[in-house]
This record gives sequence, C-alpha cells and structure tokens, in this order.
Amino acid sequence: MAEHLSQSELDYPFKLLEYFNGFRVSKVIFSACELGVFNLLLKAQEPISAQHVAQELSCSEDGMERLMDALVGIEILEVETKDGTALYSSSDVANLYLAKGSGKSLHDMIIYQSQTIYPLWNNMADAVREGKNQNEKTFGLPSEDIFKALYRSEEEMLKFMGLMNSSWVLDGHDIVTAFNLSGFQKIVDLGGCTGALAREMAKAWPSSSVTVLDLPQVVEVAQKHFPQEDDAVEFQSGDFFSDEIPPADLYILARIIHDWPEEKCVTLLKKIHDSCRPGGGVLLVEALLFENRRGPVTAQIFSLNMLVQMEGRERPPSEYTRILEKTGFHNVQVCRTGKCYDTILATR
Amino acid sequence: MAEHLSQSELDYPFKLLEYFNGFRVSKVIFSACELGVFNLLLKAQEPISAQHVAQELSCSEDGMERLMDALVGIEILEVETKDGTALYSSSDVANLYLAKGSGKSLHDMIIYQSQTIYPLWNNMADAVREGKNQNEKTFGLPSEDIFKALYRSEEEMLKFMGLMNSSWVLDGHDIVTAFNLSGFQKIVDLGGCTGALAREMAKAWPSSSVTVLDLPQVVEVAQKHFPQEDDAVEFQSGDFFSDEIPPADLYILARIIHDWPEEKCVTLLKKIHDSCRPGGGVLLVEALLFENRRGPVTAQIFSLNMLVQMEGRERPPSEYTRILEKTGFHNVQVCRTGKCYDTILATR
Repeated sequence: MAEHLSQSELDYPFKLLEYFNGFRVSKVIFSACELGVFNLLLKAQEPISAQHVAQELSCSEDGMERLMDALVGIEILEVETKDGTALYSSSDVANLYLAKGSGKSLHDMIIYQSQTIYPLWNNMADAVREGKNQNEKTFGLPSEDIFKALYRSEEEMLKFMGLMNSSWVLDGHDIVTAFNLSGFQKIVDLGGCTGALAREMAKAWPSSSVTVLDLPQVVEVAQKHFPQEDDAVEFQSGDFFSDEIPPADLYILARIIHDWPEEKCVTLLKKIHDSCRPGGGVLLVEALLFENRRGPVTAQIFSLNMLVQMEGRERPPSEYTRILEKTGFHNVQVCRTGKCYDTILATR
Repeated sequence: MAEHLSQSELDYPFKLLEYFNGFRVSKVIFSACELGVFNLLLKAQEPISAQHVAQELSCSEDGMERLMDALVGIEILEVETKDGTALYSSSDVANLYLAKGSGKSLHDMIIYQSQTIYPLWNNMADAVREGKNQNEKTFGLPSEDIFKALYRSEEEMLKFMGLMNSSWVLDGHDIVTAFNLSGFQKIVDLGGCTGALAREMAKAWPSSSVTVLDLPQVVEVAQKHFPQEDDAVEFQSGDFFSDEIPPADLYILARIIHDWPEEKCVTLLKKIHDSCRPGGGVLLVEALLFENRRGPVTAQIFSLNMLVQMEGRERPPSEYTRILEKTGFHNVQVCRTGKCYDTILATR
C-alpha cells in the first residue's frame, strides 16, 4: 500500500477518504446480500431492471436502483441500457461468492459480519479504552462467557457456524495441504464446528480418519443444518476444556487459540499433549501476525476483532512457538499460506 | 478498479474480502480519532510507545497496541523497535488530516461519520426495502422532519456542522474556482452553515460581497464555535423555504438540492429565480453521478447516504439541467472537479 499514502495524499487525501468510505462499501455488499439481490440475479440468468428486482424482493424501486448502481460502481454488478431502461446482471465473482448455493458461497459469512460484527465494531473505541469485549454494550449480553454470547440462540449459533463454514470453504484446501500430514492416522479437529475443515482434511489425506469434537449443541446444529451425504468425518460431542480429550495422532485447533487468554491456551495445550499419541502432534490454524508488527492488515484487524468480541488475540509465530514449547511440544514449523489463515505444526 | 475484480478474483476473492473488511478499516481510523491518538502523536513530536499513549489517553495498553499496529498496517502510523520496545510515530498525512487543529483537519468529519453515519448504515437494507430514511429505527427520531433530527441537540448540530465545515476545507477551493465568478457582485450562500465555503468564495473573488444565510440556531452555533477574525463573510438568519430570500447576483446551493425530493427543489429554485437580480445566477455544488450509472462510486454512495438519512438523492448532470430549466434558469454549465464535489452554474 506504500504507493497510496504518499506525498500526493498530502495534496488531496483520496486514499484516506476511501478508508472513510470503507464501512459504506461493506454495507452496500452486505445489504444486497441480505435482501437477496445476488440470488435473484443468478436465478434470472439474464439482465433485469431494478424495478423488476425491487418487485421480486418487495423493496422500494428507488432504493434498489441506488443500491444496484453502487454495486456497478464497485464492479460487482454490470449494467447496460436498452431502450432507455437500465438492465443489471451479475458478475462471475458475485455468482460464485455472493449468491447462495454455490459451494464457494460466502453468503453466511456476510450475514454474520453484517448483523453481528458490524454493530460490535461500533463500540471499538470503548473496547480499546476498557481492553475488553463489547458484547454487553452492543447486545446486552454478558461479556464473561463469550460462547454463551455467541450461542445465545439457535439462530445466532447458526449464523456463527455459517461464518466458520464459509472461511474454511475459502482457505481449507491451502490449510490442510500446507504440511505433509500423511503420517497421521487418527485426526481430531477440536472445536471443528460444521466439519468443513475436517472434510478438507479427509479429502487431502484419505488414509486418515478424521473426527470433529465440539459442544453437544454445536454438533446437533452441524448435523441438522450442514449435513453431508456419505460424510467422510465423524462427529463427537464434548467440551475440550472440561471433558476428556480422545487420544489421537494429530489435533487440529483452528481459530481456537486466538479466542482465549494465554493461561487458558496453556491449559488446553497441556491437556492435548497428555492425550496425544507418541509421534503425534498439533496443527494450529490462525492468522499470523508479522514479528515486526507491520502486518498483515487482515491479521491485525482480526486481532482487534478478538478484542471487541472475544478474550483472545492474534499472535506472531514466535508467540505460538513459545506457548507450544512451554506445553511440551517440539519442532515447531510455520507455514504462511498467503491467504487469510496460516498454519503451525508441532510434534509431541 | 477493473483490474481487481478479474479472473484471478475467482480463484481467491482478495478484493471482495477487502471490501468486507472496509467497515473495520474505517473504524480503526475513526476509533483512533475519537480516542485522541493522532492529537497525542502530533503533540509528542517523537516516537512513543503504545504503553505511553494508553496511559495518556486512559486506555488499555493491550487494546491501544492492537489499534496502533493496525494503523501501521494501513500506513497511517509508522513503527520502529528500539531496545525491544515498539515506538510509534505519526505520518504527515495523519498530522495534516487526522489530528485536530491543522487547517485541513478532517477530525470533525470523522466524528460525525463514526457516531452518526455508521449506525445509520447498519439499517441500509431496511432503507432500501422501505425507500426512506432510518432516523427513527437508528436513533428513535422522527423520519419526517430531517433537520429536526439532524439538529436535535446543540451537540448533534455542532457535529453536523463540523462535517460540513471539513468538506469545504477539502474541496472548497476547487469548487469556488471552477468557474469565473468575478462578474457576480453580491453572493448569498443559502444554507451556508459554518461559512467555510463562503470564505473560500470571498478569498477567490475578493471584489464580491458574500453572505451566509442559514437557520437562526445554525448562525448562532456558527458564530460561537466557528468564529473567524476579520471575517470576510456576513451571516444572516433565515429559513430559505419559509422566509424571503434576499436579492443577490449569485446564489450558492451547496449540498442543499440533494437533501430534498424534486418538488421541494423546484419550489426553492423558483423562489431563488424570483429574487435573483438580472444577469445573476445560481451555483449548485453536488457530487455528480455519471449519466451511464457506472460511477463515480463516491457519488453513488452519497446517494445511498441521502436515502438512509435524508429525503433526497444525488443526480447526474442531465437531471440538474432539467430541474434548472424547469425553474427558469438557462445556460447550464457543468464542471467536474475530480474531487468529491462538483459544480453547476446556471444563469437567470
């Protein structure tokens, strides 16, 4: 980004104004997603007018026209004028990622970001002031029990699980192939949620057996709302903090460590170390910060997200190495995928 | 932007994810501004630690460190490590635009965007559905009387006026010099708010006399909070809808027409036409849409802002021309400044 915030920015702050507009661009996409615009355009399979879209989705014509024009401006939709009428069509990117139904759809991620994360970030200044999450101020929820807040209703749980599911749809393949894991027979994904990452694992390493362990209510919702025919993974109910951890050769902790303060992570990793079979290991999946604090922006922003919503943080590799070695693990290897999430492999 | 949403975006939607992060990047800057980070760094005049900043601003050290690291990531702050301590300093861009006090400070614009516009946009989907502003749902304010909502307290009025003031600090000079206005003797800026644009006008065209006409409570707050020594402009109290409009050679309507539905604009412009001296004219200042609906993104987004907060919209030049000609004006000339706001000059 160095080219942006240069001398010319002092003459007129174009890039800064773009940053100020950031929340509006996010909400243009999020709102269209919530209203079902991308689903309708995908279904229509031909260019249609804003009037048509508004009627189908029970929206005001004027509002829909402005929303769709803004989506044209950011190149997510296309427009052509025919006999004086503007006709809109979707882009390949919108069809693949923004409409529902495609295997790569980020629809659920967007709903969660729009309805839960966006309001939380309205209290970011207070989060920085107080150094704690803003679930109480934003939603009237207790700030101490974060998963009680996240899973306050089946609807909220479903939204959160949709978010997790979407992320692994994007980054899953890169994550599970970052290291050669063919030597690990039994793999347990602790807090594996809908099983999306576990399935990528089973696909990449077909000789392994992969189990998802998560809270009973999560497993129930996963099997009800994210079922899979001939599922390659098994589900097991349990709380990895309070219940026994099943023995295995490899444990996956994907976006688990970043939820918690260090002492809880240490407790958990020690417990995993105790259950781990000889020659086994642990695979952490997190957005890794640079050691020099200069990025990546995504990981820095996720770390603020952990502040405003959870009890944890993102960390640079050295921090994970220190915690892993403290809990008895060795041979810590780091792989940056170049996507949002990276991986760390350590052996017992 | 064409290079972003290309084929490679189908492999991995980097640009789309950047759009999803837009609201978080906005809030990183807004929160730092609200907490006073940029003011403190400007005052410090040497690199300081996050611990130091946190102490001075009564914030958590951990939260402040994460916030400042994210500001480094988007290149608004700089960081260097000395004896194991990270020391942060401001960029020239932050000192000029984000700290308070510089003549070009956008501090007030940011506060308004963060505290008023950001929550309003959380209800954008409803605005599109209903085709009307969301002042009631967002703030419990009546949606009918928009200026009553905007000016609901002196604090809110001050924030709104700060926003307007900041915009003219940025775009004012380009706007007032877009046309040769030396022929207009008496200039009245209708709804001229703090007088920032009127002062740019008086500076660019020193042989003119420039008057700001605005509501009595606005004029009062303008003179109390935005005073100017040896002010080159005069203030006059009045409601341009219900009171008489003083005779003049040139009327400025800067971001006024975009607030209202067409019938109110027509009423206002007819009234202006009646008061306008022979040879006089009207200068509209608005963010102009392209006729082909493809941009500019800023204007498209402003138009959605008008939907969620006001009763108006942004328009392409042909719309302004039509309305101006309908109300008796001629020789409509359009000048795009290349900044956020453009100008249209028409004569009586």
